[in-house]
Amino acid sequence: MNFTLHPRLEAGTHRLGFTKGCHILLKNNAAFPWIIIVPEVEKGIEDLHQLTPERYAEVAFLIRSVSHFVSDHFQTEKLNVACIGNVVRQMHLHIVGRSESDPAWPGTVWACDVKKSYSEEKIAAIKSTAQTELQLEG
Amino acid sequence: MNFTLHPRLEAGTHRLGFTKGCHILLKNNAAFPWIIIVPEVEKGIEDLHQLTPERYAEVAFLIRSVSHFVSDHFQTEKLNVACIGNVVRQMHLHIVGRSESDPAWPGTVWACDVKKSYSEEKIAAIKSTAQTELQLEG
Repeated sequence: MNFTLHPRLEAGTHRLGFTKGCHILLKNNAAFPWIIIVPEVEKGIEDLHQLTPERYAEVAFLIRSVSHFVSDHFQTEKLNVACIGNVVRQMHLHIVGRSESDPAWPGTVWACDVKKSYSEEKIAAIKSTAQTELQLEG
Repeated sequence: MNFTLHPRLEAGTHRLGFTKGCHILLKNNAAFPWIIIVPEVEKGIEDLHQLTPERYAEVAFLIRSVSHFVSDHFQTEKLNVACIGNVVRQMHLHIVGRSESDPAWPGTVWACDVKKSYSEEKIAAIKSTAQTELQLEG
């Protein structure tokens, strides 16, 4: 499949790897443990229910694996999982670990302007753990 | 299972019916076609990935059916599907039909204060169609 990541996703994330036909990205905002899954899909498909049942199941269970990873690795209190995409229409799924101490709590991260940078070391550590635990290709 | 709907979900929705161990509710805001799924889950479970793989698959495919229903019945342009629950911790899933003409576009509905009432006739019509198309128990 001829795949190009949307420029806004490209600019707003660090690449962690690829698995199950999906790109796994770390949102470049250390204020929240925030993974974005971008499934490679056919042209014109924007919503999860438009996938075939087989592909839907594959993506749904990848969401489950990534949810476990975020919850376990970042020791968060609650997960927020969403497919929104009103602005960036390329299908992408948010898995965000939430805690009472985070700057958007209890509101949503999409309504929050707080940004915090990751260090290069921190990004490398998250990438290494994600690649092992989610069995990502580089 | 001993199930009680959270008072805020009870107050903010109209009941459409029950299927696959889940309550299907219509958000009482006619500004958006907005269905809420409340799965009956064991005590302490708040996030989807905490469900067993079998129950996870069942709920995931119910989300798919409800997504088709919202998309087809309300002829929306985009779906927003989310499990958030930072305030109301009883697990509940939002399936919201979005359009460029809606009052929150392109922002999220959770950051929008616009409310609009349904007529009793409209609620009855949606309930009747949902019960047929989603094979709901009353």
